[in-house]
Amino acid sequence: MSYRAPIKDMLFTMRHVAGIDRVTSLPNFEEFDLETIEAVLEESAKLCEQEIAPLNAVGDREPSRWSDGSVVATPGFQRAFQLFADGGWQGLGHPQAFGGQGLPKLVASACSEMLQASNVSFGLCPMLTDGAIEALITAASPELREKYAQPLIMGKWTGTMNLTEPQAGSDLAAVRTRAEPHADGSYRVFGTKIFITWGEHDMAQNIVHLVLARLPDAPPGVKGISLFVVPKFLVSEDGSLGARNDVQCVSIEHKLGIKASPTAVLQFGCADGAVGELVGEAHQGLKYMFIMMNAARFAVGMQGIGVADRAYQQALAFARERVQGRDLSGTGEPVAIVQHPDVKRMLLTMKAVTESGRALAYVAAAASDLAHHSGDESVRQENQSLYEFLVPVIKGHCTEMSVEIASLGVQIHGGMGFIEETGAAQHYRDARILPIYEGTTAIQANDFVGRKTMRDGGVFAIAVCTRIAATERELAEHAHPDCQSMRLALQAGRRAFEAAIEFVVSEGSTRPAVVYAGAVHYLRLAGIVLCGWQMARSMLAAMSCDAGDSGFSVSKVATALFYAETLLPQSQALATALMGGGTTVERVTAEML
Amino acid sequence: MSYRAPIKDMLFTMRHVAGIDRVTSLPNFEEFDLETIEAVLEESAKLCEQEIAPLNAVGDREPSRWSDGSVVATPGFQRAFQLFADGGWQGLGHPQAFGGQGLPKLVASACSEMLQASNVSFGLCPMLTDGAIEALITAASPELREKYAQPLIMGKWTGTMNLTEPQAGSDLAAVRTRAEPHADGSYRVFGTKIFITWGEHDMAQNIVHLVLARLPDAPPGVKGISLFVVPKFLVSEDGSLGARNDVQCVSIEHKLGIKASPTAVLQFGCADGAVGELVGEAHQGLKYMFIMMNAARFAVGMQGIGVADRAYQQALAFARERVQGRDLSGTGEPVAIVQHPDVKRMLLTMKAVTESGRALAYVAAAASDLAHHSGDESVRQENQSLYEFLVPVIKGHCTEMSVEIASLGVQIHGGMGFIEETGAAQHYRDARILPIYEGTTAIQANDFVGRKTMRDGGVFAIAVCTRIAATERELAEHAHPDCQSMRLALQAGRRAFEAAIEFVVSEGSTRPAVVYAGAVHYLRLAGIVLCGWQMARSMLAAMSCDAGDSGFSVSKVATALFYAETLLPQSQALATALMGGGTTVERVTAEML
Repeated sequence: MSYRAPIKDMLFTMRHVAGIDRVTSLPNFEEFDLETIEAVLEESAKLCEQEIAPLNAVGDREPSRWSDGSVVATPGFQRAFQLFADGGWQGLGHPQAFGGQGLPKLVASACSEMLQASNVSFGLCPMLTDGAIEALITAASPELREKYAQPLIMGKWTGTMNLTEPQAGSDLAAVRTRAEPHADGSYRVFGTKIFITWGEHDMAQNIVHLVLARLPDAPPGVKGISLFVVPKFLVSEDGSLGARNDVQCVSIEHKLGIKASPTAVLQFGCADGAVGELVGEAHQGLKYMFIMMNAARFAVGMQGIGVADRAYQQALAFARERVQGRDLSGTGEPVAIVQHPDVKRMLLTMKAVTESGRALAYVAAAASDLAHHSGDESVRQENQSLYEFLVPVIKGHCTEMSVEIASLGVQIHGGMGFIEETGAAQHYRDARILPIYEGTTAIQANDFVGRKTMRDGGVFAIAVCTRIAATERELAEHAHPDCQSMRLALQAGRRAFEAAIEFVVSEGSTRPAVVYAGAVHYLRLAGIVLCGWQMARSMLAAMSCDAGDSGFSVSKVATALFYAETLLPQSQALATALMGGGTTVERVTAEML
Repeated sequence: MSYRAPIKDMLFTMRHVAGIDRVTSLPNFEEFDLETIEAVLEESAKLCEQEIAPLNAVGDREPSRWSDGSVVATPGFQRAFQLFADGGWQGLGHPQAFGGQGLPKLVASACSEMLQASNVSFGLCPMLTDGAIEALITAASPELREKYAQPLIMGKWTGTMNLTEPQAGSDLAAVRTRAEPHADGSYRVFGTKIFITWGEHDMAQNIVHLVLARLPDAPPGVKGISLFVVPKFLVSEDGSLGARNDVQCVSIEHKLGIKASPTAVLQFGCADGAVGELVGEAHQGLKYMFIMMNAARFAVGMQGIGVADRAYQQALAFARERVQGRDLSGTGEPVAIVQHPDVKRMLLTMKAVTESGRALAYVAAAASDLAHHSGDESVRQENQSLYEFLVPVIKGHCTEMSVEIASLGVQIHGGMGFIEETGAAQHYRDARILPIYEGTTAIQANDFVGRKTMRDGGVFAIAVCTRIAATERELAEHAHPDCQSMRLALQAGRRAFEAAIEFVVSEGSTRPAVVYAGAVHYLRLAGIVLCGWQMARSMLAAMSCDAGDSGFSVSKVATALFYAETLLPQSQALATALMGGGTTVERVTAEML
């Protein structure tokens, strides 16, 4: 199934929802006007549509293969990665000072969405590399930055994140991998890391592993974790590659989906230990890892949006072609199934959910740009808070929804959806990892409850609700009945969200088990309302700018309205579940299950 | 992962929710007391747990294989099927007059649930055979019945249903397979049928295909379809097997799940035509096929419940074993993840949804028994109406929920859920076919809207709501706060259902496209409320009979309460979506997607 980057919706959303003007007027981004950005999106679309998307099904049929410690990537991946690197796409959002293109995160996010929609397995490699780059740029010494970050940014090497161990998944306090100081100032790392995405492959000359490990004098728990950089091949002073390091890929996993992406078990230190260098300060590894994690969590949310869009495009193409059944109202002639009300409902659900997720993610990306580059401290802070508030929602909500959307995609195909050759099932399988890796939905929800809501007593969350109420007032000023339907639905959703915030803040410290039992409900409620808010803003924008492309605007308004009518009502159900269900969960013991 | 038949909950539900006393006091079933029935369940459990469940993962790893027109079933399946046949399980619910055991459908349904929970791929073969038996018993001549139904009931042969053709999926009016009369009174069948479950295999000596085809003088559309019985091997007068018939298995499909179940493309008539015999009257095929379909639809609902229970058991076992993270409130010691609030929430959701589906299905099965065997005409009619009302809900709702439950099962496993060896992912893959085959969820929803609600102006649907209101009054009589929480939630759900019924009845004939665009919302709303009703009745029963097993009763009450608090609230959201979203779906054209 071919993929088309939804450039029109991307640009509309950047302009009218995420406010790209504010981003391009930042001092760092003045060189990027809208024309340049459009050209970047079109170049990215070309690479993704023509080279990377066609490899998606190939990777499912011919996964990357392990043999004797080495991994051979899916046929075609090496070449595609070369094109990706040569085009400078790895450095798209990274600073020009380190060899990157220095584009706003808003633009890089749209390109990342294309990449992930094209091929999640492939896209994971640049995504993990991005995380490694961020950590190195933020935490490493200038020497380490030059040694490792630059080749990563240039796409010469790739990066990995090594957190998980068999006994340490969501709970990093249980990490056992150890690092011993060596006379020359380097370290020797010993331990086993699992679930290492693209932990071994043949697409680049070197792999830069960022590894969580404990120093001999480390305190127990998360406060004793340090971050090390451990290259697959040792790197000389002049940047050339030396001996193979003592890190081995012992095996790769047999997975439900994203089969082209090798998920490695890495053994550090089979002999004298893997040579590593300390990144930043000792015992600060978790802090640095969160730099990678936050970038990665946002990026996984983009994967969810990408997969949802791909599943939508595939289902729509099928529904337009497949003739089955009769026209309900009309002639009794056979029709394409896209004409059937329930198929239209499913497609519209896929479209509305995907576009709403895209809008929320782009809003967050723009906030990140303002947070990093605004000259005004208060703007920076305000936007940093917004970005941090939104990341767990985008990761949690947009990935959970991607599973549901991919499932609808299968359903639209009917029996053909269950046949692997059709391709719909791959999205259903691929999507299923997204609510799990880089922090499960529960981990995101706990973050959203604890750090993002309770810590400031709900102040920021309520401030966001105030902004939603302002959009309601804008809607009230339009006489159009669609705006009034949207306003009422958004208002009901916002009020449910406010009630939930109040519940979380007032009960969270005294009855944490009750609140955390509903944390996922709270997160999903926030997701539905915040995405609905963006759909309301999209509706307003589409109504006031439909001179450009009336077909697009009409469709956008209808999609937003459909979101208001069928998705926003879930917010009350989620608020009720949050506030009502926790006590019962607490009362149920493990033995009663 | 081992499977344990939930006999305790099955018996509780049969006794206190489905009213087994009324069933066993029917003239045909007086020989079956509760003790006998318990013994049957235990024997069934033994076979399922020990022989059939262990083959589930085997079938996923080693699917049935096609080679040169033949299919070799997954290793172990042949022996298991022999045990199944020898135990008389194929005849469990079929009349003693034809060699069956003549047990109530209520009991047969519980055994079917065990079989499907053990192994959906395996269970499909007896399930389709059941359908063939029902059609033959109801529609075929005494000669055909003796010739074909008896060997099927005895498990000597297996049966198939041949409806679908490449251009005729949900729309059977498009069937093209033709049957030509032959001088000896038989027919010669020509055509291609696809998606034929267990259409070819080596587990039994013969396969009895029931095939929809058109006679030369047939009118177009569904009124020109006749039903034929076409055996793989011709059957002589004395019942012995003769020559191979002219029906070939051309290939089998490569599927997302239920891989051990061969899904065949059958070619009828490569040479002189496949010898077939007409079942019942000409042009009445669709009517007969619906006999099979209705039995099969109920059975697929049982598959949904079975898969959900299996996924639940697997996730619970994992959550009890997997140690990760700290106790939220307590000592800070590592704990099994079953202690974490969100994991408990997910497990409780799986448990509540599964048990509520089981309760609704058993209520329907008991209604079917009363409909067939009561001496009182009005009881028969009343229960036939209830059964027919519930079948699309059980098929539609319990299969959609099985996908969601299996997905939660993966989520509870975290990263391990994505690794195929763990087994959680198989349920997620297997479940995905259930909302598709034997009529997609949309087909069920259209049936529920059209035949089950609009046809009698909503009279029966509203009568069901009156019965729900009676349960609310029973709850009101209990002072216990759990009963009051349940009452309020059930009342809100019932009122949402009533509003939806009114909408469907009043708008259905004038604005069908609007109503059918929300048909799936309507079906799911009905599912949530009707299942919630059974949970309310379970709660009342558990409160009044907890002398027997207080642990079980306490758990049942909490599970029902959790259902009321977290699942029933969805009913209002679904009613809103039904009543609000259809107009927008109608307004959106295919070009706007």
